[in-house]
Amino acid sequence: MMRAWLGGKLCAPEEAHVAIADRGFLLGDGVFETMRVRNGRAFDLDAHLERLASGLKVLDFAQAVDLGRLRADVASYLSAEAADSAILRVTVTRGAGPRGLAPPGAPHPTLLMTLAPMPAPRDSPLSLHIARRTRRNEFSPVSRIKALPYLDNLIALEEARAHGADEALMLNTRGAVACATIANLFLIREGRLETPPVSDGALPGAMRALALSLANQVGLTPVEASLEEADIAAADEVFLTNSVRGAAAAGSCNGAPLRRRAGGALERLRGLIAARIEET
Amino acid sequence: MMRAWLGGKLCAPEEAHVAIADRGFLLGDGVFETMRVRNGRAFDLDAHLERLASGLKVLDFAQAVDLGRLRADVASYLSAEAADSAILRVTVTRGAGPRGLAPPGAPHPTLLMTLAPMPAPRDSPLSLHIARRTRRNEFSPVSRIKALPYLDNLIALEEARAHGADEALMLNTRGAVACATIANLFLIREGRLETPPVSDGALPGAMRALALSLANQVGLTPVEASLEEADIAAADEVFLTNSVRGAAAAGSCNGAPLRRRAGGALERLRGLIAARIEET
Repeated sequence: MMRAWLGGKLCAPEEAHVAIADRGFLLGDGVFETMRVRNGRAFDLDAHLERLASGLKVLDFAQAVDLGRLRADVASYLSAEAADSAILRVTVTRGAGPRGLAPPGAPHPTLLMTLAPMPAPRDSPLSLHIARRTRRNEFSPVSRIKALPYLDNLIALEEARAHGADEALMLNTRGAVACATIANLFLIREGRLETPPVSDGALPGAMRALALSLANQVGLTPVEASLEEADIAAADEVFLTNSVRGAAAAGSCNGAPLRRRAGGALERLRGLIAARIEET
Repeated sequence: MMRAWLGGKLCAPEEAHVAIADRGFLLGDGVFETMRVRNGRAFDLDAHLERLASGLKVLDFAQAVDLGRLRADVASYLSAEAADSAILRVTVTRGAGPRGLAPPGAPHPTLLMTLAPMPAPRDSPLSLHIARRTRRNEFSPVSRIKALPYLDNLIALEEARAHGADEALMLNTRGAVACATIANLFLIREGRLETPPVSDGALPGAMRALALSLANQVGLTPVEASLEEADIAAADEVFLTNSVRGAAAAGSCNGAPLRRRAGGALERLRGLIAARIEET
Protein backbone atom coordinates (compact mmCIF):
# COMPACT_ATOMS: atom_id res chain seq x y z
CA MET A 1 0.00 0.00 0.00
CA MET A 2 1.28 3.40 -0.95
CA ARG A 3 2.05 6.07 1.61
CA ALA A 4 -0.23 9.03 2.21
CA TRP A 5 0.69 12.71 2.21
CA LEU A 6 -0.64 14.54 5.25
CA GLY A 7 0.43 17.71 7.02
CA GLY A 8 3.17 18.33 4.47
CA LYS A 9 4.85 14.95 4.73
CA LEU A 10 4.68 11.31 3.74
CA CYS A 11 3.30 8.83 6.21
CA ALA A 12 2.27 5.19 6.36
CA PRO A 13 -1.51 4.94 5.79
CA GLU A 14 -2.09 3.28 9.15
CA GLU A 15 -0.30 6.14 10.89
CA ALA A 16 -2.18 8.86 9.00
CA HIS A 17 -4.99 10.33 11.08
CA VAL A 18 -7.03 13.49 11.21
CA ALA A 19 -7.99 15.37 14.35
CA ILE A 20 -11.51 14.75 15.68
CA ALA A 21 -12.08 18.52 15.55
CA ASP A 22 -11.44 18.57 11.78
CA ARG A 23 -14.45 20.20 10.13
CA GLY A 24 -14.10 17.86 7.17
CA PHE A 25 -15.00 15.03 9.54
CA LEU A 26 -17.56 16.90 11.65
CA LEU A 27 -19.44 18.85 8.96
CA GLY A 28 -18.27 17.73 5.51
CA ASP A 29 -16.53 21.11 5.30
CA GLY A 30 -14.07 20.58 2.47
CA VAL A 31 -13.48 19.64 -1.16
CA PHE A 32 -11.57 17.00 -3.04
CA GLU A 33 -10.32 15.97 -6.46
CA THR A 34 -9.77 12.55 -7.96
CA MET A 35 -7.22 12.35 -10.76
CA ARG A 36 -5.73 9.79 -13.06
CA VAL A 37 -1.96 9.52 -12.64
CA ARG A 38 0.06 8.49 -15.69
CA ASN A 39 3.81 8.51 -16.22
CA GLY A 40 4.25 9.99 -12.77
CA ARG A 41 2.08 13.01 -13.46
CA ALA A 42 -1.54 13.91 -12.66
CA PHE A 43 -3.60 14.09 -15.85
CA ASP A 44 -5.40 17.41 -16.41
CA LEU A 45 -4.00 18.81 -13.16
CA ASP A 46 -4.77 22.42 -14.12
CA ALA A 47 -8.48 21.71 -14.59
CA HIS A 48 -8.65 19.85 -11.28
CA LEU A 49 -6.84 22.60 -9.35
CA GLU A 50 -9.12 25.18 -10.93
CA ARG A 51 -12.22 23.31 -9.80
CA LEU A 52 -10.75 22.82 -6.34
CA ALA A 53 -10.12 26.58 -6.16
CA SER A 54 -13.70 27.31 -7.19
CA GLY A 55 -14.90 25.02 -4.40
CA LEU A 56 -12.71 26.75 -1.84
CA LYS A 57 -14.14 30.06 -3.02
CA VAL A 58 -17.74 28.86 -2.56
CA LEU A 59 -16.85 27.66 0.94
CA ASP A 60 -14.97 30.91 1.58
CA PHE A 61 -11.57 29.67 2.65
CA ALA A 62 -9.66 30.01 -0.62
CA GLN A 63 -7.42 32.63 0.99
CA ALA A 64 -6.07 29.98 3.38
CA VAL A 65 -4.87 27.60 0.65
CA ASP A 66 -1.72 28.28 -1.40
CA LEU A 67 -2.42 26.61 -4.74
CA GLY A 68 1.18 26.99 -5.92
CA ARG A 69 2.33 25.14 -2.83
CA LEU A 70 -0.38 22.52 -3.38
CA ARG A 71 0.83 21.99 -6.94
CA ALA A 72 4.38 21.51 -5.65
CA ASP A 73 3.11 19.08 -3.01
CA VAL A 74 1.37 17.00 -5.68
CA ALA A 75 4.63 16.77 -7.64
CA SER A 76 6.63 15.88 -4.51
CA TYR A 77 4.16 13.20 -3.52
CA LEU A 78 3.94 11.55 -6.95
CA SER A 79 7.71 11.66 -7.27
CA ALA A 80 8.29 10.15 -3.82
CA GLU A 81 5.86 7.32 -4.52
CA ALA A 82 7.14 6.81 -8.07
CA ALA A 83 3.54 6.50 -9.17
CA ASP A 84 3.28 5.40 -12.79
CA SER A 85 -0.38 4.48 -13.26
CA ALA A 86 -2.63 5.17 -10.27
CA ILE A 87 -5.50 7.25 -8.91
CA LEU A 88 -4.71 10.31 -6.85
CA ARG A 89 -7.17 11.83 -4.41
CA VAL A 90 -6.46 15.31 -3.04
CA THR A 91 -8.62 16.33 -0.07
CA VAL A 92 -8.63 19.83 1.40
CA THR A 93 -10.74 20.59 4.48
CA ARG A 94 -11.09 23.80 6.51
CA GLY A 95 -9.19 22.04 9.30
CA ALA A 96 -10.05 22.11 12.99
CA GLY A 97 -12.48 24.58 14.50
CA PRO A 98 -14.37 25.26 17.71
CA ARG A 99 -17.74 23.60 18.40
CA GLY A 100 -20.58 24.66 16.12
CA LEU A 101 -21.28 25.57 12.53
CA ALA A 102 -19.61 29.00 12.39
CA PRO A 103 -16.14 28.60 10.85
CA PRO A 104 -12.95 29.80 12.53
CA GLY A 105 -11.78 33.24 11.37
CA ALA A 106 -8.27 32.04 10.50
CA PRO A 107 -8.58 28.45 9.30
CA HIS A 108 -5.64 26.05 9.10
CA PRO A 109 -6.73 23.73 6.26
CA THR A 110 -5.96 20.04 6.23
CA LEU A 111 -4.33 18.67 3.06
CA LEU A 112 -4.49 14.92 2.54
CA MET A 113 -3.32 13.06 -0.56
CA THR A 114 -3.66 9.36 -1.18
CA LEU A 115 -2.86 7.04 -4.08
CA ALA A 116 -4.77 3.93 -5.05
CA PRO A 117 -4.23 1.40 -7.83
CA MET A 118 -6.16 1.83 -11.08
CA PRO A 119 -9.24 -0.41 -11.12
CA ALA A 120 -9.24 -3.24 -13.65
CA PRO A 121 -10.55 -2.18 -17.05
CA ARG A 122 -14.20 -2.89 -17.61
CA ASP A 123 -15.38 -4.59 -20.80
CA SER A 124 -19.16 -4.75 -20.52
CA PRO A 125 -21.32 -1.66 -20.87
CA LEU A 126 -22.83 -0.14 -17.72
CA SER A 127 -26.37 -0.83 -16.58
CA LEU A 128 -28.07 2.35 -15.36
CA HIS A 129 -30.99 2.99 -13.02
CA ILE A 130 -32.82 6.29 -12.63
CA ALA A 131 -32.85 7.00 -8.89
CA ARG A 132 -36.19 7.88 -7.25
CA ARG A 133 -35.20 8.19 -3.60
CA THR A 134 -33.37 11.50 -3.87
CA ARG A 135 -32.57 14.40 -6.20
CA ARG A 136 -29.70 16.70 -7.08
CA ASN A 137 -30.24 20.19 -5.67
CA GLU A 138 -29.51 22.52 -8.59
CA PHE A 139 -30.38 25.48 -6.34
CA SER A 140 -27.27 24.84 -4.26
CA PRO A 141 -23.80 26.08 -5.24
CA VAL A 142 -22.57 22.85 -3.61
CA SER A 143 -23.91 20.96 -6.66
CA ARG A 144 -21.33 22.78 -8.77
CA ILE A 145 -18.25 22.02 -6.66
CA LYS A 146 -16.62 18.73 -5.71
CA ALA A 147 -17.44 18.95 -2.02
CA LEU A 148 -16.85 16.15 0.51
CA PRO A 149 -20.56 15.35 1.10
CA TYR A 150 -21.69 12.55 -1.18
CA LEU A 151 -24.74 11.27 0.69
CA ASP A 152 -27.37 11.92 -1.98
CA ASN A 153 -25.14 10.24 -4.54
CA LEU A 154 -24.58 7.35 -2.15
CA ILE A 155 -28.33 6.93 -1.59
CA ALA A 156 -28.87 6.94 -5.36
CA LEU A 157 -26.06 4.42 -5.91
CA GLU A 158 -27.43 2.07 -3.25
CA GLU A 159 -30.85 2.25 -4.90
CA ALA A 160 -29.27 1.36 -8.24
CA ARG A 161 -27.35 -1.57 -6.73
CA ALA A 162 -30.56 -2.81 -5.09
CA HIS A 163 -32.07 -2.90 -8.59
CA GLY A 164 -29.07 -4.82 -9.92
CA ALA A 165 -27.70 -1.83 -11.82
CA ASP A 166 -24.10 -0.59 -11.86
CA GLU A 167 -24.76 3.11 -11.57
CA ALA A 168 -27.60 5.57 -10.90
CA LEU A 169 -28.72 8.56 -12.89
CA MET A 170 -29.87 11.43 -10.71
CA LEU A 171 -32.71 13.81 -11.47
CA ASN A 172 -32.70 17.40 -10.29
CA THR A 173 -35.61 18.97 -8.41
CA ARG A 174 -37.34 19.84 -11.69
CA GLY A 175 -37.10 16.25 -12.87
CA ALA A 176 -34.40 16.82 -15.50
CA VAL A 177 -31.57 14.27 -15.64
CA ALA A 178 -28.47 15.88 -14.08
CA CYS A 179 -25.67 13.31 -13.89
CA ALA A 180 -24.66 9.94 -12.48
CA THR A 181 -23.41 9.43 -8.91
CA ILE A 182 -19.70 9.41 -9.79
CA ALA A 183 -19.78 10.51 -13.41
CA ASN A 184 -21.26 12.94 -15.91
CA LEU A 185 -23.88 11.83 -18.41
CA PHE A 186 -23.53 12.17 -22.18
CA LEU A 187 -25.65 11.08 -25.07
CA ILE A 188 -25.06 11.07 -28.80
CA ARG A 189 -28.05 11.94 -30.95
CA GLU A 190 -28.34 13.09 -34.55
CA GLY A 191 -24.72 14.18 -34.74
CA ARG A 192 -24.79 16.01 -31.41
CA LEU A 193 -22.86 15.28 -28.22
CA GLU A 194 -25.31 16.30 -25.50
CA THR A 195 -24.80 16.72 -21.77
CA PRO A 196 -26.82 18.52 -19.09
CA PRO A 197 -25.65 22.04 -18.20
CA VAL A 198 -24.02 22.68 -14.84
CA SER A 199 -27.03 24.84 -13.94
CA ASP A 200 -29.12 21.64 -13.95
CA GLY A 201 -27.10 20.29 -11.04
CA ALA A 202 -24.38 18.49 -13.01
CA LEU A 203 -20.92 18.56 -11.47
CA PRO A 204 -18.52 20.35 -13.86
CA GLY A 205 -16.32 17.30 -14.37
CA ALA A 206 -12.81 17.62 -15.80
CA MET A 207 -13.45 14.66 -18.13
CA ARG A 208 -16.79 16.20 -19.07
CA ALA A 209 -14.99 19.36 -20.19
CA LEU A 210 -12.43 17.31 -22.12
CA ALA A 211 -15.13 15.29 -23.90
CA LEU A 212 -16.96 18.47 -24.92
CA SER A 213 -13.71 19.95 -26.22
CA LEU A 214 -13.01 16.85 -28.33
CA ALA A 215 -16.53 16.55 -29.80
CA ASN A 216 -15.76 18.27 -33.08
CA GLN A 217 -12.77 16.00 -33.69
CA VAL A 218 -15.07 12.98 -33.70
CA GLY A 219 -17.64 14.65 -35.93
CA LEU A 220 -20.11 15.71 -33.22
CA THR A 221 -21.47 19.11 -32.22
CA PRO A 222 -21.16 19.67 -28.45
CA VAL A 223 -24.40 20.79 -26.82
CA GLU A 224 -25.09 21.60 -23.17
CA ALA A 225 -28.86 21.33 -22.78
CA SER A 226 -31.34 19.91 -20.30
CA LEU A 227 -32.12 16.23 -20.74
CA GLU A 228 -35.36 14.52 -19.83
CA GLU A 229 -35.73 10.85 -18.95
CA ALA A 230 -37.19 10.09 -22.37
CA ASP A 231 -34.05 11.42 -24.05
CA ILE A 232 -32.05 8.51 -22.64
CA ALA A 233 -34.02 5.88 -24.52
CA ALA A 234 -34.11 8.00 -27.68
CA ALA A 235 -30.32 8.42 -27.89
CA ASP A 236 -28.07 6.69 -30.41
CA GLU A 237 -25.53 6.11 -27.65
CA VAL A 238 -25.33 6.89 -23.92
CA PHE A 239 -22.11 7.07 -21.93
CA LEU A 240 -20.68 8.34 -18.66
CA THR A 241 -17.43 10.19 -18.04
CA ASN A 242 -15.16 10.60 -15.05
CA SER A 243 -11.48 11.04 -14.42
CA VAL A 244 -10.84 7.43 -13.45
CA ARG A 245 -12.75 5.60 -16.19
CA GLY A 246 -12.66 8.16 -18.99
CA ALA A 247 -15.75 7.52 -21.14
CA ALA A 248 -17.75 4.34 -20.39
CA ALA A 249 -20.64 3.14 -22.57
CA ALA A 250 -24.04 2.42 -21.03
CA GLY A 251 -25.87 -0.70 -22.22
CA SER A 252 -29.19 -0.42 -20.43
CA CYS A 253 -31.34 1.89 -18.35
CA ASN A 254 -34.02 0.70 -15.93
CA GLY A 255 -33.67 -2.76 -17.43
CA ALA A 256 -34.28 -1.71 -21.03
CA PRO A 257 -31.41 -2.01 -23.53
CA LEU A 258 -30.02 1.26 -24.91
CA ARG A 259 -29.12 1.80 -28.56
CA ARG A 260 -25.45 1.65 -29.45
CA ARG A 261 -25.39 2.90 -33.02
CA ALA A 262 -23.46 6.16 -33.00
CA GLY A 263 -21.21 4.91 -35.80
CA GLY A 264 -18.07 4.55 -33.72
CA ALA A 265 -18.07 8.13 -32.41
CA LEU A 266 -17.73 6.97 -28.80
CA GLU A 267 -14.86 4.66 -29.70
CA ARG A 268 -13.06 7.51 -31.48
CA LEU A 269 -13.63 9.77 -28.48
CA ARG A 270 -12.21 7.11 -26.17
CA GLY A 271 -9.18 6.82 -28.40
CA LEU A 272 -8.55 10.58 -28.26
CA ILE A 273 -8.93 10.61 -24.46
CA ALA A 274 -6.53 7.67 -24.09
CA ALA A 275 -3.99 9.43 -26.29
CA ARG A 276 -4.22 12.57 -24.17
CA ILE A 277 -3.69 10.54 -21.01
CA GLU A 278 -0.64 8.83 -22.52
CA GLU A 279 0.81 12.27 -23.34
CA THR A 280 0.60 13.31 -19.65
CA MET B 1 -10.78 20.47 28.21
CA MET B 2 -12.85 17.37 28.65
CA ARG B 3 -11.79 14.01 27.28
CA ALA B 4 -13.33 12.49 24.18
CA TRP B 5 -14.84 9.03 23.80
CA LEU B 6 -13.54 7.20 20.75
CA GLY B 7 -13.27 3.55 19.85
CA GLY B 8 -14.95 2.54 23.11
CA LYS B 9 -12.67 4.41 25.44
CA LEU B 10 -11.79 7.78 26.89
CA CYS B 11 -8.93 9.72 25.39
CA ALA B 12 -7.35 13.14 25.60
CA PRO B 13 -8.75 15.33 22.80
CA GLU B 14 -5.30 15.94 21.29
CA GLU B 15 -4.73 12.19 21.10
CA ALA B 16 -8.12 11.46 19.54
CA HIS B 17 -7.87 10.93 15.79
CA VAL B 18 -9.80 9.26 13.04
CA ALA B 19 -8.35 7.20 10.22
CA ILE B 20 -7.91 8.97 6.89
CA ALA B 21 -9.98 6.20 5.30
CA ASP B 22 -12.98 7.02 7.51
CA ARG B 23 -15.96 7.64 5.24
CA GLY B 24 -17.21 10.31 7.62
CA PHE B 25 -14.13 12.32 6.67
CA LEU B 26 -13.97 11.34 2.99
CA LEU B 27 -17.66 11.49 2.04
CA GLY B 28 -19.68 12.93 4.94
CA ASP B 29 -20.99 9.38 5.42
CA GLY B 30 -22.42 9.53 8.92
CA VAL B 31 -24.84 11.16 11.34
CA PHE B 32 -24.62 13.01 14.62
CA GLU B 33 -26.66 14.32 17.52
CA THR B 34 -26.12 17.33 19.74
CA MET B 35 -27.66 17.14 23.20
CA ARG B 36 -27.94 19.25 26.30
CA VAL B 37 -26.43 17.55 29.33
CA ARG B 38 -27.93 18.39 32.72
CA ASN B 39 -27.36 16.75 36.07
CA GLY B 40 -25.06 14.23 34.42
CA ARG B 41 -27.68 13.00 31.97
CA ALA B 42 -28.43 13.75 28.32
CA PHE B 43 -31.74 15.58 27.99
CA ASP B 44 -34.29 13.91 25.69
CA LEU B 45 -31.87 11.06 24.94
CA ASP B 46 -34.61 8.76 23.62
CA ALA B 47 -35.67 11.27 20.96
CA HIS B 48 -32.06 11.83 19.89
CA LEU B 49 -31.29 8.12 19.67
CA GLU B 50 -34.46 7.58 17.67
CA ARG B 51 -33.47 10.24 15.15
CA LEU B 52 -29.95 8.85 14.99
CA ALA B 53 -31.40 5.43 14.25
CA SER B 54 -33.60 6.85 11.48
CA GLY B 55 -30.51 8.43 9.94
CA LEU B 56 -28.60 5.16 10.07
CA LYS B 57 -31.55 3.49 8.37
CA VAL B 58 -31.59 6.05 5.54
CA LEU B 59 -27.83 5.53 5.07
CA ASP B 60 -28.34 1.76 5.33
CA PHE B 61 -25.93 0.82 8.08
CA ALA B 62 -28.30 0.65 11.04
CA GLN B 63 -27.58 -3.08 11.36
CA ALA B 64 -23.96 -2.30 12.24
CA VAL B 65 -24.77 -0.06 15.22
CA ASP B 66 -25.93 -1.48 18.57
CA LEU B 67 -28.12 1.28 20.03
CA GLY B 68 -28.29 -0.40 23.42
CA ARG B 69 -24.52 -0.39 23.57
CA LEU B 70 -24.47 3.22 22.37
CA ARG B 71 -26.86 4.21 25.16
CA ALA B 72 -24.59 2.51 27.70
CA ASP B 73 -21.56 4.28 26.21
CA VAL B 74 -23.29 7.66 26.60
CA ALA B 75 -23.91 6.89 30.29
CA SER B 76 -20.32 5.69 30.82
CA TYR B 77 -18.89 8.76 29.15
CA LEU B 78 -21.03 11.28 31.04
CA SER B 79 -20.31 9.50 34.29
CA ALA B 80 -16.56 9.38 33.69
CA GLU B 81 -16.46 13.09 32.85
CA ALA B 82 -18.83 14.01 35.72
CA ALA B 83 -20.59 16.32 33.28
CA ASP B 84 -23.15 18.49 35.07
CA SER B 85 -24.10 21.12 32.51
CA ALA B 86 -22.57 20.69 29.06
CA ILE B 87 -23.20 19.94 25.41
CA LEU B 88 -22.73 16.39 24.15
CA ARG B 89 -22.10 15.56 20.52
CA VAL B 90 -22.43 11.94 19.41
CA THR B 91 -21.02 11.22 15.93
CA VAL B 92 -21.47 7.89 14.16
CA THR B 93 -19.84 7.30 10.77
CA ARG B 94 -19.77 4.22 8.57
CA GLY B 95 -16.07 3.87 9.45
CA ALA B 96 -13.27 3.07 7.03
CA GLY B 97 -13.86 1.74 3.55
CA PRO B 98 -12.02 1.08 0.30
CA ARG B 99 -11.57 3.85 -2.31
CA GLY B 100 -14.76 5.03 -3.97
CA LEU B 101 -18.39 5.73 -3.22
CA ALA B 102 -19.68 2.16 -2.84
CA PRO B 103 -19.84 1.30 0.86
CA PRO B 104 -18.13 -1.73 2.41
CA GLY B 105 -20.42 -4.73 2.83
CA ALA B 106 -19.61 -5.17 6.52
CA PRO B 107 -18.98 -1.68 7.94
CA HIS B 108 -17.20 -1.04 11.23
CA PRO B 109 -18.75 2.24 12.33
CA THR B 110 -16.80 4.93 14.15
CA LEU B 111 -18.36 6.27 17.36
CA LEU B 112 -17.03 9.58 18.65
CA MET B 113 -18.42 11.51 21.61
CA THR B 114 -17.26 14.92 22.77
CA LEU B 115 -18.35 17.33 25.47
CA ALA B 116 -18.20 21.11 25.30
CA PRO B 117 -19.17 23.80 27.80
CA MET B 118 -22.61 25.37 27.52
CA PRO B 119 -22.42 28.69 25.67
CA ALA B 120 -23.19 31.82 27.71
CA PRO B 121 -26.90 32.62 27.81
CA ARG B 122 -28.02 35.15 25.24
CA ASP B 123 -30.20 38.10 26.24
CA SER B 124 -30.90 39.94 23.01
CA PRO B 125 -33.29 38.53 20.39
CA LEU B 126 -31.79 37.03 17.24
CA SER B 127 -31.48 38.93 13.98
CA LEU B 128 -32.45 36.75 11.02
CA HIS B 129 -31.61 36.89 7.32
CA ILE B 130 -33.36 34.93 4.58
CA ALA B 131 -30.58 33.21 2.64
CA ARG B 132 -30.55 33.55 -1.17
CA ARG B 133 -27.38 31.69 -2.10
CA THR B 134 -28.69 28.18 -1.48
CA ARG B 135 -31.80 26.16 -0.67
CA ARG B 136 -32.83 23.17 1.41
CA ASN B 137 -33.48 20.12 -0.76
CA GLU B 138 -36.83 18.77 0.44
CA PHE B 139 -36.60 16.04 -2.23
CA SER B 140 -33.70 14.43 -0.38
CA PRO B 141 -34.15 12.07 2.58
CA VAL B 142 -30.91 13.62 3.86
CA SER B 143 -32.92 16.77 4.71
CA ARG B 144 -34.84 14.70 7.26
CA ILE B 145 -31.88 13.19 9.12
CA LYS B 146 -29.07 14.82 11.07
CA ALA B 147 -26.31 13.88 8.65
CA LEU B 148 -22.71 15.11 8.86
CA PRO B 149 -22.84 17.34 5.75
CA TYR B 150 -23.73 20.90 6.72
CA LEU B 151 -22.41 22.82 3.73
CA ASP B 152 -25.67 24.38 2.54
CA ASN B 153 -26.38 25.50 6.09
CA LEU B 154 -22.85 26.86 6.37
CA ILE B 155 -23.21 28.82 3.12
CA ALA B 156 -26.51 30.25 4.37
CA LEU B 157 -25.00 31.14 7.75
CA GLU B 158 -22.04 32.89 6.13
CA GLU B 159 -24.43 34.90 3.97
CA ALA B 160 -26.37 35.92 7.09
CA ARG B 161 -23.19 36.94 8.92
CA ALA B 162 -22.09 38.99 5.89
CA HIS B 163 -25.39 40.86 6.24
CA GLY B 164 -24.76 41.45 9.95
CA ALA B 165 -27.40 38.91 11.02
CA ASP B 166 -27.04 36.19 13.66
CA GLU B 167 -28.74 33.37 11.82
CA ALA B 168 -30.14 32.51 8.38
CA LEU B 169 -33.54 31.20 7.42
CA MET B 170 -33.40 28.70 4.56
CA LEU B 171 -35.95 28.35 1.79
CA ASN B 172 -36.67 25.02 0.15
CA THR B 173 -36.66 24.53 -3.63
CA ARG B 174 -40.30 25.68 -3.87
CA GLY B 175 -39.49 28.88 -1.99
CA ALA B 176 -41.21 27.94 1.28
CA VAL B 177 -39.34 28.72 4.50
CA ALA B 178 -37.97 25.44 5.88
CA CYS B 179 -35.80 26.15 8.93
CA ALA B 180 -32.73 28.00 10.18
CA THR B 181 -29.17 26.70 9.76
CA ILE B 182 -28.86 25.23 13.26
CA ALA B 183 -32.45 25.49 14.49
CA ASN B 184 -36.10 24.98 13.63
CA LEU B 185 -38.37 27.92 12.92
CA PHE B 186 -41.60 28.65 14.81
CA LEU B 187 -44.06 31.47 14.71
CA ILE B 188 -47.00 32.34 16.90
CA ARG B 189 -50.02 33.75 15.11
CA GLU B 190 -53.65 34.06 16.14
CA GLY B 191 -53.34 31.49 18.91
CA ARG B 192 -51.46 28.97 16.77
CA LEU B 193 -47.93 27.67 17.16
CA GLU B 194 -46.82 27.15 13.54
CA THR B 195 -43.76 25.39 12.15
CA PRO B 196 -42.94 24.03 8.68
CA PRO B 197 -43.56 20.32 8.16
CA VAL B 198 -40.60 17.96 7.80
CA SER B 199 -41.72 17.34 4.20
CA ASP B 200 -40.78 20.98 3.45
CA GLY B 201 -37.14 20.21 4.24
CA ALA B 202 -37.18 21.00 7.97
CA LEU B 203 -34.97 18.82 10.16
CA PRO B 204 -37.17 16.95 12.67
CA GLY B 205 -35.53 18.55 15.71
CA ALA B 206 -35.93 17.07 19.17
CA MET B 207 -36.62 20.53 20.62
CA ARG B 208 -39.07 21.15 17.77
CA ALA B 209 -41.02 18.04 18.81
CA LEU B 210 -40.95 19.10 22.46
CA ALA B 211 -42.20 22.61 21.64
CA LEU B 212 -45.08 21.20 19.58
CA SER B 213 -45.98 18.83 22.42
CA LEU B 214 -46.07 21.70 24.93
CA ALA B 215 -48.12 24.09 22.76
CA ASN B 216 -51.47 23.33 24.36
CA GLN B 217 -50.06 23.96 27.84
CA VAL B 218 -49.25 27.55 26.87
CA GLY B 219 -52.63 28.10 25.22
CA LEU B 220 -51.55 27.56 21.60
CA THR B 221 -52.71 25.12 18.93
CA PRO B 222 -49.76 23.32 17.30
CA VAL B 223 -49.82 23.45 13.50
CA GLU B 224 -47.36 21.97 11.01
CA ALA B 225 -47.92 23.86 7.78
CA SER B 226 -45.85 25.43 5.03
CA LEU B 227 -44.68 28.97 5.73
CA GLU B 228 -43.98 31.64 3.15
CA GLU B 229 -41.60 34.55 3.60
CA ALA B 230 -44.50 36.95 4.16
CA ASP B 231 -45.67 34.88 7.13
CA ILE B 232 -42.55 35.87 9.08
CA ALA B 233 -43.40 39.57 9.10
CA ALA B 234 -47.08 38.85 9.80
CA ALA B 235 -46.41 36.75 12.92
CA ASP B 236 -47.09 37.89 16.48
CA GLU B 237 -43.80 36.30 17.54
CA VAL B 238 -41.01 34.39 15.76
CA PHE B 239 -38.56 32.08 17.49
CA LEU B 240 -36.03 29.34 16.82
CA THR B 241 -35.52 26.08 18.66
CA ASN B 242 -32.59 23.73 19.07
CA SER B 243 -31.27 21.40 21.72
CA VAL B 244 -28.55 23.77 22.93
CA ARG B 245 -30.48 27.05 23.17
CA GLY B 246 -34.02 25.79 23.72
CA ALA B 247 -36.35 28.44 22.29
CA ALA B 248 -34.77 31.77 21.28
CA ALA B 249 -36.79 34.82 20.24
CA ALA B 250 -36.10 36.56 16.94
CA GLY B 251 -36.10 40.35 16.93
CA SER B 252 -35.67 41.16 13.26
CA CYS B 253 -35.62 39.63 9.79
CA ASN B 254 -33.77 41.14 6.82
CA GLY B 255 -33.27 44.27 8.89
CA ALA B 256 -36.95 44.84 9.68
CA PRO B 257 -38.11 44.49 13.30
CA LEU B 258 -40.43 41.56 14.06
CA ARG B 259 -43.48 41.82 16.29
CA ARG B 260 -43.14 40.47 19.82
CA ARG B 261 -46.68 40.53 21.10
CA ALA B 262 -47.72 36.93 21.68
CA GLY B 263 -48.82 37.76 25.22
CA GLY B 264 -46.05 35.90 27.01
CA ALA B 265 -46.69 32.55 25.30
CA LEU B 266 -43.01 32.21 24.30
CA GLU B 267 -41.87 33.01 27.84
CA ARG B 268 -44.24 30.39 29.26
CA LEU B 269 -42.96 27.86 26.71
CA ARG B 270 -39.37 28.65 27.66
CA GLY B 271 -40.28 28.13 31.29
CA LEU B 272 -41.77 24.70 30.57
CA ILE B 273 -38.71 23.66 28.53
CA ALA B 274 -36.34 24.84 31.28
CA ALA B 275 -38.33 22.87 33.86
CA ARG B 276 -38.12 19.72 31.72
CA ILE B 277 -34.37 20.15 31.36
CA GLU B 278 -33.98 20.57 35.13
CA GLU B 279 -35.91 17.32 35.63
CA THR B 280 -33.40 15.42 33.47
